[in-house]
Amino acid sequence: MTWLDLAADDPFGVHNLPYGAFDPGDGSRRLGARIGGQVLDLAALERVGLVEAHSTLQATTLNPFLALGRPYWTAVRDRLTELLTDPAFRDRIQPLLLPLAEVTPQLPFEVGDYVDFYSSLTHATNLGRLFRPGAEPLLPNWRHLPIGYHGRAGTVVVSGTDIVRPSGQRKPPDADAPTFGPSRCLDIEAEVGFVVGAASSLGRPLTTKDFHEYVFGVVLVNDWSARDLQAWEYQPLGPFLGKSFATSVSAWVVPLDALASARVPAPQQSPLVLPYLADERIGYDIRIEVVWDGTVVSRPPFSGLYWTPAQQLAHLTANGASVRPGDLYASGTVSGRERDQVGSFIELTWGGAEPVTLADGRTRTFVEDGDTVTLTATAPGPDGTVVGFGEVVGRILPAVS
Amino acid sequence: MTWLDLAADDPFGVHNLPYGAFDPGDGSRRLGARIGGQVLDLAALERVGLVEAHSTLQATTLNPFLALGRPYWTAVRDRLTELLTDPAFRDRIQPLLLPLAEVTPQLPFEVGDYVDFYSSLTHATNLGRLFRPGAEPLLPNWRHLPIGYHGRAGTVVVSGTDIVRPSGQRKPPDADAPTFGPSRCLDIEAEVGFVVGAASSLGRPLTTKDFHEYVFGVVLVNDWSARDLQAWEYQPLGPFLGKSFATSVSAWVVPLDALASARVPAPQQSPLVLPYLADERIGYDIRIEVVWDGTVVSRPPFSGLYWTPAQQLAHLTANGASVRPGDLYASGTVSGRERDQVGSFIELTWGGAEPVTLADGRTRTFVEDGDTVTLTATAPGPDGTVVGFGEVVGRILPAVS
Repeated sequence: MTWLDLAADDPFGVHNLPYGAFDPGDGSRRLGARIGGQVLDLAALERVGLVEAHSTLQATTLNPFLALGRPYWTAVRDRLTELLTDPAFRDRIQPLLLPLAEVTPQLPFEVGDYVDFYSSLTHATNLGRLFRPGAEPLLPNWRHLPIGYHGRAGTVVVSGTDIVRPSGQRKPPDADAPTFGPSRCLDIEAEVGFVVGAASSLGRPLTTKDFHEYVFGVVLVNDWSARDLQAWEYQPLGPFLGKSFATSVSAWVVPLDALASARVPAPQQSPLVLPYLADERIGYDIRIEVVWDGTVVSRPPFSGLYWTPAQQLAHLTANGASVRPGDLYASGTVSGRERDQVGSFIELTWGGAEPVTLADGRTRTFVEDGDTVTLTATAPGPDGTVVGFGEVVGRILPAVS
Repeated sequence: MTWLDLAADDPFGVHNLPYGAFDPGDGSRRLGARIGGQVLDLAALERVGLVEAHSTLQATTLNPFLALGRPYWTAVRDRLTELLTDPAFRDRIQPLLLPLAEVTPQLPFEVGDYVDFYSSLTHATNLGRLFRPGAEPLLPNWRHLPIGYHGRAGTVVVSGTDIVRPSGQRKPPDADAPTFGPSRCLDIEAEVGFVVGAASSLGRPLTTKDFHEYVFGVVLVNDWSARDLQAWEYQPLGPFLGKSFATSVSAWVVPLDALASARVPAPQQSPLVLPYLADERIGYDIRIEVVWDGTVVSRPPFSGLYWTPAQQLAHLTANGASVRPGDLYASGTVSGRERDQVGSFIELTWGGAEPVTLADGRTRTFVEDGDTVTLTATAPGPDGTVVGFGEVVGRILPAVS
């Protein structure tokens, strides 16, 4: 039990303790841990000697701390838990707590490489139907390997960043030539992202068993997608400008250690995977909510994903590719089997053919200028608690003319 | 004329002055400029006050210097030229010159995002024929936009780094299921890479006219490719593990300013491109040589590429995506029309069907363990000089078992 005045069901209790970066209001950038509605100033905490992590907590991004590896992650987490539960520390900790409302969250880590997978069977099937009508929706490779691609790391932005509607080329099938202009099919993708901590060596693949040693924590991801740009550009080398304008992530990285009680069996796979992808079939019971201008329009269940994050890490490095602190790999759009469980609007409205009605009566097909989309999520914590994720919120600004 | 004892036709004369990073032998990392067979220690040069660039020349990568922007790039280049041509500086400069043979080149910049284009009409047509036999080789979008995708920035390595043969999944068309093992079709891609200097703002596209302000210089790129892995994985999201194991770059970044005399008209485009891609049709007469274990097997001409680097930059940012100092975008495989001008071995040997014979009589289809592949290049410099590029050399080590 924490000595802070926190409700037992607060999703940001001591059982969670996610890490992030914030601007306290003076334009600087500091690391912090979120506890309830407050932020513990980790830079100050280390400076006064209450925690020790080789000065990495005084950096402006989590990357140096991530690079220390699992023994340090555990030691610092244990220490923070002690400081926030033993009342003997109350008087020294309290001055280091800032109200969340008075700080501005920053991107918590410098993104190394950003990889986006495609691991929901339902999403891959739906997109196959929408992008390649008349053809077999699931390609022959899909059940043999976690399909993925590299996204743009430099345009990963923190929750709260406004998103300018992208322009680009699009060509409807019945047009003779492409035109250039603002995307007419701006979409979201609700995903779960895994933040790599420890570095691996070039030429040395990791295995599915290495997941816990190399992955530090989890963020929510909204991989904004311009479907009209994507449809015209993506053959043969994959999505590019249809995705690269922005990817929003939550401001608080939930440590893997906070998700031990959220582990659930992942779906069995058929056909059997190749040995390098064999794993313990551990999924995470992360329940996402997609909120479109105030209306909950979908509740994608992460637990049902076909490919697990451990398999994704093993696949990502199977060719000897190395990982670095700050690498981010996302699950791909989380879509459950039901229409109100899908993680993208192209699925929700079936390519725009079946508009959704918001709570106030407005209808929507794709995201309009001024719309705000928010992703939130929770997962089971220890002893009946709930682990909260920071929200991912983004508002759409009109295209640059 | 430099006061150094350099041949007039030295491709690394004062007309070139490429930048890089090196280890002088003590495990440290310093910036330098190459002049002939020597390296000018830029960190020391700035420390003693002979050049001034806000201490960025004392960093361990070029990124802080790149971020200063074109006015500083020009000022520092002008100053280096002065120091190396005015004999009054000889006695102060000479102690700061190290023999190239006594230092170890390092990756010159930390790679932000790595984008690989696909801008050779011949290469795209050849690959279309090889990967999608029986279908129209060039997809409908190819002449309307420079097709590209994001590669893995964290596995960009400097010339001289050994390349471990990647393993992965591959499935021949007649097999029932994929197998996992070392790639049997390890290939190269000879490319020209553009190093972004100045940062742009998210949401604000650049134009083709911004090329000279934002791009600092040029490296040679070997985008190693495992064709069997690529063929099985690349649908629908593009190349991933078939490419992400390693990309080699030359150690010396040739400033755009050194290539003014290499500018040549780029091929005219038909159909006309959309207005945001209209440019001055400026190509660069960079002549690449591909050397396979000592035998020159190809001479790809960069000047013939359909899409120019100015168009690539405008396209890359057309959706509002920002660029950062250290971003690298490569041309895609440079293939001329003739068989001895192609930039990949899958083209040279037509998918392995037509082996090449090396000078010593050995034959090759794809790259074998122990093989060394070297790319070199030259371009016309001012007053009849030649601009040399640093080589890109890589030797293949056997797969990890």
